[in-house]
Amino acid sequence: MAASGTLAFPVISVSDSAVKLALDNTHGTGQSTIDGIVRATGILLAGKIFVVGGFGHVARGIAVRARGMGARVIVTETLPTAALRAAMEGFTVRPMAEAARVGDIFCTATGMCDVITGDHLDEMKDGAILANAGHFDREIDLQALADRTVEERAVRGNTVEHVLFDGRRLYLLADGRVVNLVAAEGNPSEVMDATFAAQLMALLRLVGDRRPSRPGVYYLSAEDDEELARMKLATLGISTDR
Amino acid sequence: MAASGTLAFPVISVSDSAVKLALDNTHGTGQSTIDGIVRATGILLAGKIFVVGGFGHVARGIAVRARGMGARVIVTETLPTAALRAAMEGFTVRPMAEAARVGDIFCTATGMCDVITGDHLDEMKDGAILANAGHFDREIDLQALADRTVEERAVRGNTVEHVLFDGRRLYLLADGRVVNLVAAEGNPSEVMDATFAAQLMALLRLVGDRRPSRPGVYYLSAEDDEELARMKLATLGISTDR
Amino acid sequence: MAASGTLAFPVISVSDSAVKLALDNTHGTGQSTIDGIVRATGILLAGKIFVVGGFGHVARGIAVRARGMGARVIVTETLPTAALRAAMEGFTVRPMAEAARVGDIFCTATGMCDVITGDHLDEMKDGAILANAGHFDREIDLQALADRTVEERAVRGNTVEHVLFDGRRLYLLADGRVVNLVAAEGNPSEVMDATFAAQLMALLRLVGDRRPSRPGVYYLSAEDDEELARMKLATLGISTDR
Amino acid sequence: MAASGTLAFPVISVSDSAVKLALDNTHGTGQSTIDGIVRATGILLAGKIFVVGGFGHVARGIAVRARGMGARVIVTETLPTAALRAAMEGFTVRPMAEAARVGDIFCTATGMCDVITGDHLDEMKDGAILANAGHFDREIDLQALADRTVEERAVRGNTVEHVLFDGRRLYLLADGRVVNLVAAEGNPSEVMDATFAAQLMALLRLVGDRRPSRPGVYYLSAEDDEELARMKLATLGISTDR
Repeated sequence: MAASGTLAFPVISVSDSAVKLALDNTHGTGQSTIDGIVRATGILLAGKIFVVGGFGHVARGIAVRARGMGARVIVTETLPTAALRAAMEGFTVRPMAEAARVGDIFCTATGMCDVITGDHLDEMKDGAILANAGHFDREIDLQALADRTVEERAVRGNTVEHVLFDGRRLYLLADGRVVNLVAAEGNPSEVMDATFAAQLMALLRLVGDRRPSRPGVYYLSAEDDEELARMKLATLGISTDR
Repeated sequence: MAASGTLAFPVISVSDSAVKLALDNTHGTGQSTIDGIVRATGILLAGKIFVVGGFGHVARGIAVRARGMGARVIVTETLPTAALRAAMEGFTVRPMAEAARVGDIFCTATGMCDVITGDHLDEMKDGAILANAGHFDREIDLQALADRTVEERAVRGNTVEHVLFDGRRLYLLADGRVVNLVAAEGNPSEVMDATFAAQLMALLRLVGDRRPSRPGVYYLSAEDDEELARMKLATLGISTDR
Repeated sequence: MAASGTLAFPVISVSDSAVKLALDNTHGTGQSTIDGIVRATGILLAGKIFVVGGFGHVARGIAVRARGMGARVIVTETLPTAALRAAMEGFTVRPMAEAARVGDIFCTATGMCDVITGDHLDEMKDGAILANAGHFDREIDLQALADRTVEERAVRGNTVEHVLFDGRRLYLLADGRVVNLVAAEGNPSEVMDATFAAQLMALLRLVGDRRPSRPGVYYLSAEDDEELARMKLATLGISTDR
Repeated sequence: MAASGTLAFPVISVSDSAVKLALDNTHGTGQSTIDGIVRATGILLAGKIFVVGGFGHVARGIAVRARGMGARVIVTETLPTAALRAAMEGFTVRPMAEAARVGDIFCTATGMCDVITGDHLDEMKDGAILANAGHFDREIDLQALADRTVEERAVRGNTVEHVLFDGRRLYLLADGRVVNLVAAEGNPSEVMDATFAAQLMALLRLVGDRRPSRPGVYYLSAEDDEELARMKLATLGISTDR
């Protein structure tokens, strides 16, 4: 809208706050996605091959936590810099077409569509589990899954078994919607407090003395982010140097 | 009973099976205890100080998983060899009297009584969380907690807030009972299958040709454990060398 | 120089390349700093308290690797956002004045002066080890160390024992110079190749068709960084999705 | 010798001391083997595929530390219980014949012969690195390597390049001898002190009042091990509960 000139007022993009990215996206969603998958399935993560679609802030949080629970993590990425970061952090990086053949659990978190396609579904092992922690139920191609399904039944609260025409069974969690919100409780209040504080600070900046005068997308300043981090650290009882 | 001569028949102690210790005690309970604490409280583990009472198989599993979720873990132990192992694995080892002053979450898993006493409760921070994953509700001195409580209320399904006479609030999970069974679903079926297989193998050994003829406590042989592990690996699709 | 108008030609700051930051600063220096400290001292890292001054790219790499070797890591920071990131990754964050009292090994990597001051030296335990992996020998106040030293002797190739007036002994590595260059071999060639490729690309951009026409500090583009990462991934045999 | 009746005096097997196994074998050799490989080769471990032959105390220490340095670790084992433990700790477990095709670095630590055979050498990638941390230079089949080598040259102090008849190059470290002793400095004194203390305690037990009267292999008692651990913890400044 800003690019096309249809944005009628100043906006502050809180999503780019360093504090929100670190706390909410990475560590909040990292924990709650693992939580959602465990609640939905009741499976053991140790020793499993856990495929994470993406290595942005959210996906990295999931990858780190899945590894922390003993899973072997494969990361798929399209962006070379992100793939390189993942590899240097000790994750296996492979194309989804290869990961599809070996994964026990798949969790997409890219913000893109069709991260898992019909071709990938065709390669998956009997018993593979499909979850999404990215935005909306578009990361897994649900139509492709439906096209291959001859029978489906709910086996647990948020787990639907899809029996495919070739007999393999795939397990879709939370209808492909955001698994940490549907199957768990979303992010802890201790994470959301920082995100809400960033939103409040953005509102104050939009009405304050130095508010932006023209329509456009603005950001919290580095100083704002440091102030948010300082407040959050204080609630955690953590002191820093001056 | 064996020592006192009152054991009337042969018994095989499945609890000492290497497969059961590795899978069930360490990785099963490690995951499900974290699961129970998160479901009961909804808190973020990253950055928290998580005190684990003990460093036996169960406690070590909890410590490893808590660290995997981003917590800073303190281990308390009475056994010097276990304390040394914990320290070499990078855990902070301190007496409970010191850990009590700094911990955010406490989880006992020793199989002993009174791991957390009234003296420890007196030192804890406002807001500390108390859980137990060991045997029975004797690891936290519940009477000492009751003696200090002036008001209590359920704040979530398995979390009771205890307001102490000095105003501090402590949060007791699952009434001090085994938190992974009460607040989560216990260990995954993929863990219990190995434990049940060990029990079945013990039964076969008790009725087979080479069954023990005298009353006493017996164990599965090393060969039995290797056979159990071989079957479990096969279900996981893992091959080894010959 | 750019700000003061004295910069006479266009410059590309390769140091800000995402590929250089990830590979060279974090993982290259992370490994080689640990290497330098082990070669200089011959100590065991497991179980030690390892204090890292800073949590920028270099310092984070050192913190992650020290933890990977079994040390308990304390991070000191002045920047709240960096401190928060460290805490969420499970590191203990404390002011240097507190860390000074408990650390076994100190390694500064901030790019600032006087991260470890005389006041900090006064608090350190007998036997503490001092190293620097940041820029130049200014992060540890060497004058303050000299002022407190009554006797010094080389105990190993790059380790000098300082006996202080109160009898405590501190061990300074590599004269406070960059420990991974002095006591080890610097960063592996597999890291430097990417950094040198970034430098070559910067040179090509400075002489190419779309070279900057005015003096100033420029950066590699996101596309340049992706191209560098793509080449590096190819040498590692790692494929990504398209 | 004990089994054949040729052992002429009582012997205490210090190698089975719980303190020695935990400290010396696992954490001492774990660190010093990584150290030896890095000093011999100068390579970056992050992102590499590091194959560990075995998952006993020594091999596990190496696997844990290699992972701590950012490598992706594959474990090969013959013993199913050890393979299962490795898998549950998040390591990839595969037969050596499969690992041979993908590994960047191989390190044997089994105490057996011919862990890496000619067949495995035939599968390895150009540039693979071969090291041994187990007992003696028998774990890698050096004759098989020699049979395939058309040219060899020392490329660094403890690294010999073997150009094979098919043009591939393999790099043998320390002539296949124990890499932590040859290419690094062996285990830190802080580890050996505990091992030497165990040896001294064994001597005291062999001459003390309750010394064994008949030839045979004896062990330190659990109480002896706890006493050793207690002393070691005291030197580390670590307190435990009573």
